[in-house]
Amino acid sequence: MGFNSSGTLMSRKKLPPIRSSIAWSDAQTINVHGFDLCKDLLGKVDLGDMAFLQLLRRLPTRNESIVFNSMLVSLVEHGLTANTISARLTLLGAPESLQGAVAAGLLGLGSTFVGTIEGAARLVEENPLDSTEPDAIARKAESILDKFIAQDQPIPGIGHPIHKPLDPRAERLFEIAREQGIDTRGEMLMRAVSRAAEQRLNKVLPVNVTGAIGSISTTLGLPWRITRGLGVMARSLGLVGHLLEEMQQPIAKSIWYHAEEEAEEELKTR
Amino acid sequence: MGFNSSGTLMSRKKLPPIRSSIAWSDAQTINVHGFDLCKDLLGKVDLGDMAFLQLLRRLPTRNESIVFNSMLVSLVEHGLTANTISARLTLLGAPESLQGAVAAGLLGLGSTFVGTIEGAARLVEENPLDSTEPDAIARKAESILDKFIAQDQPIPGIGHPIHKPLDPRAERLFEIAREQGIDTRGEMLMRAVSRAAEQRLNKVLPVNVTGAIGSISTTLGLPWRITRGLGVMARSLGLVGHLLEEMQQPIAKSIWYHAEEEAEEELKTR
Amino acid sequence: MGFNSSGTLMSRKKLPPIRSSIAWSDAQTINVHGFDLCKDLLGKVDLGDMAFLQLLRRLPTRNESIVFNSMLVSLVEHGLTANTISARLTLLGAPESLQGAVAAGLLGLGSTFVGTIEGAARLVEENPLDSTEPDAIARKAESILDKFIAQDQPIPGIGHPIHKPLDPRAERLFEIAREQGIDTRGEMLMRAVSRAAEQRLNKVLPVNVTGAIGSISTTLGLPWRITRGLGVMARSLGLVGHLLEEMQQPIAKSIWYHAEEEAEEELKTR
Amino acid sequence: MGFNSSGTLMSRKKLPPIRSSIAWSDAQTINVHGFDLCKDLLGKVDLGDMAFLQLLRRLPTRNESIVFNSMLVSLVEHGLTANTISARLTLLGAPESLQGAVAAGLLGLGSTFVGTIEGAARLVEENPLDSTEPDAIARKAESILDKFIAQDQPIPGIGHPIHKPLDPRAERLFEIAREQGIDTRGEMLMRAVSRAAEQRLNKVLPVNVTGAIGSISTTLGLPWRITRGLGVMARSLGLVGHLLEEMQQPIAKSIWYHAEEEAEEELKTR
Repeated sequence: MGFNSSGTLMSRKKLPPIRSSIAWSDAQTINVHGFDLCKDLLGKVDLGDMAFLQLLRRLPTRNESIVFNSMLVSLVEHGLTANTISARLTLLGAPESLQGAVAAGLLGLGSTFVGTIEGAARLVEENPLDSTEPDAIARKAESILDKFIAQDQPIPGIGHPIHKPLDPRAERLFEIAREQGIDTRGEMLMRAVSRAAEQRLNKVLPVNVTGAIGSISTTLGLPWRITRGLGVMARSLGLVGHLLEEMQQPIAKSIWYHAEEEAEEELKTR
Repeated sequence: MGFNSSGTLMSRKKLPPIRSSIAWSDAQTINVHGFDLCKDLLGKVDLGDMAFLQLLRRLPTRNESIVFNSMLVSLVEHGLTANTISARLTLLGAPESLQGAVAAGLLGLGSTFVGTIEGAARLVEENPLDSTEPDAIARKAESILDKFIAQDQPIPGIGHPIHKPLDPRAERLFEIAREQGIDTRGEMLMRAVSRAAEQRLNKVLPVNVTGAIGSISTTLGLPWRITRGLGVMARSLGLVGHLLEEMQQPIAKSIWYHAEEEAEEELKTR
Repeated sequence: MGFNSSGTLMSRKKLPPIRSSIAWSDAQTINVHGFDLCKDLLGKVDLGDMAFLQLLRRLPTRNESIVFNSMLVSLVEHGLTANTISARLTLLGAPESLQGAVAAGLLGLGSTFVGTIEGAARLVEENPLDSTEPDAIARKAESILDKFIAQDQPIPGIGHPIHKPLDPRAERLFEIAREQGIDTRGEMLMRAVSRAAEQRLNKVLPVNVTGAIGSISTTLGLPWRITRGLGVMARSLGLVGHLLEEMQQPIAKSIWYHAEEEAEEELKTR
Repeated sequence: MGFNSSGTLMSRKKLPPIRSSIAWSDAQTINVHGFDLCKDLLGKVDLGDMAFLQLLRRLPTRNESIVFNSMLVSLVEHGLTANTISARLTLLGAPESLQGAVAAGLLGLGSTFVGTIEGAARLVEENPLDSTEPDAIARKAESILDKFIAQDQPIPGIGHPIHKPLDPRAERLFEIAREQGIDTRGEMLMRAVSRAAEQRLNKVLPVNVTGAIGSISTTLGLPWRITRGLGVMARSLGLVGHLLEEMQQPIAKSIWYHAEEEAEEELKTR
């Protein structure tokens, strides 16, 4: 019998059977979530629809497709960030392994960056509005704020160091969602939380892009626990773009040497 | 001065400046490859178009969009494969780190699986057809085959253990490309290589999905060195889908315990 | 100026200079934490001592070396676990990238498995004993227990599904630490917590190997936040061993196909 | 039945049983490669010996232990390199996932850096000396050189941009190996290759640390295919050290912002 260093696992009776309902295939057919890949999907759905299908087990309506694609598109590219630099440095050491460089880039998508999507989605999922009456929403926002402040935790989905007084991506995503007839209660709640926080903390704290995405993805039916996956999906596309640029005009060595030289200078001048 | 264990790097004079032409932003604007993210892209392009933009620095035409999205869609989901299992096992150990589980899944996208896209793309890129005359194509295919056989290397992009006598995904992707008016010389070459190999080796060796994708992406202008990235992009979407299923009906522990128990039984019966 | 999806970063004034005090080199010398690698370390210290140097910036005494090496040795090999299987599956897909397969294996070392080392180390670090009087220790253990139970959290470092009534690794590690004259207050506290939990919860809950390691590493001076790193260091050695076995007698494909076939059978019999 | 995008796998008859001979355990015992972990290993062997056991399935002699530990110790720490920077950047984004940051760092250990160990080990493994007569060795070195030059490939294990005219680590490792009575034929061959290359190419090309390690590990019985694993093992220790320093005096944000700002300046001055 096996073992591990933890006490939390290992009672191995009555484990569930191994099963997966996502895909099957035979010589002529590949079936994904009940659709024939070649007949029903190829040439008919776009990549965002396919991501929607993977997460919600059905194809989006046309309206949902536009909203869902927009959310993912907004997350693809963030410039020369910590994680695109990490991917580029990894490619320098292992140019034969593109997948390794993308993986290194994805590993930085933790609590500091994309984790706030989760937080905002959870906030909206756990606080459904039973009334769209402004005062009721404001009271709900205040009570949400109370909880975060009592636990000394940052309020997810609001505030941005650069995009002030509004985050243009959040505004545009909410606008698209409204244009496409998506339920706006999530937006109402996030905006109320933003207003309450701005007043209480006396800071500019607009709903940011992760707040909009957290809210809209909850409205579309995504469980909050998987919303970090939206960032992972989108950034994997962005990372491949950065790695192509790195192949064509490499900068990883310059970044490395600059850091090393500054560190050595600092060490010598002590 | 720093050091490393290799003799191939480290002459640090005249390194290029650090630069990246992909994106920049200020308080009101996010610009990606020359487009205003909020005005030009959100609500207007789909996720596949955004991937196209990252790789080719321009938006696709409507025809290209359909073809490119189809290629990516065909790669998203392959069922319970080695790498989706690896991602699920990783989530079991680190449920707090979705990005780590996706990264673990991507790391298996090496030479055995998606690497063949690269091979097919390179074959097409390095053998441009200057004539569409059938005999000329057949001769070129024979000479390509000669080289692979002389070097005792597998011919990329042809053959499939299950999808015989034709790979339905390859057939459908080629059909979509033709419908959308994409240049068909890559298809002609890959089919000629398939025919030549079938005759020479007396086996059923249809152009497979990686052959179709390698060929079409070369036609669209992608450098072969980045084509593995198509698999990486698409599979990251598929992996998030598998991890959502794993959260909802976990099987990783069953897979692990089955393997461990079979291994122990084997050890005991020696 | 760049941007990201989070509001928590990006005020970029007064960032610290880039510096690192770990190593420097010139043509003749490599210096690590103040030691000349070739003269002071090679041939004189073992791999565990080098890990100690990396974490505590000094070489261990002979006693500390024995204790620290033992802790790491105890973590190297855990058989066919979720993460060794994940590493093997990854090698199947990317045999050219050993580092990728090890990385995939490490990614599973999250909160479920090695995370408990951190918890136990933190428990000991945050509850220093000012008296070794048995009743005082028992009272401290009770109050620790109260906190975990009030927060409905598992008590780290105690309990094991297989190793009962005692975890032989924990017993041996504590024994080695005593033989080498290491301060035993951490052991006393962990044992008191175990006893208190056994009485309160009426279960067999011995100090397990992660409890012993968490406690001893705190005694040696390691900050709790880095103790997960002991597991990462040790398991990377174990993973390379598994990958060598996988190269010589591969089983990844058997594990994959078994899982896939069971999943399909289940799908068909619905 | 499942499927994948490659034609090279998937004939699923007669797969081998799932087995692993590395470790087993029951309530009282953990057995690793035939040794009782608690009785035979803990307190008695060091971490390098444990790595040796994982790779060679036996414990090292005292002489072998010193040599093997030295090789690993020489690889632990290389200062602020591309991969330690990548690990630090990853920790910035996902501070909750130390294993992810180490994994990101390991992913850069590809063909550019540690891959040369493999090359040197393979060179020595595939060219066993049947005579230690100097002229015979010189002739063998020349013929090896011929092959690399004919294929236009770099000669692994020789040359270093900084450590000239000799690499002090290589010299010290060879010295330790001789002191411990390890067979010196690998050293003779590598030195002959270095001399031949220096004459032929008129450059300073000493045996470097990867050449010494490749040669000595072959002499100890390691298959060349696993020698990259020595770098992976050792660097995982070094990476944890860098991540501890990053927790205590963070520099990742400074590295990121410097790169981003330089990139933007460059973009603006076009």
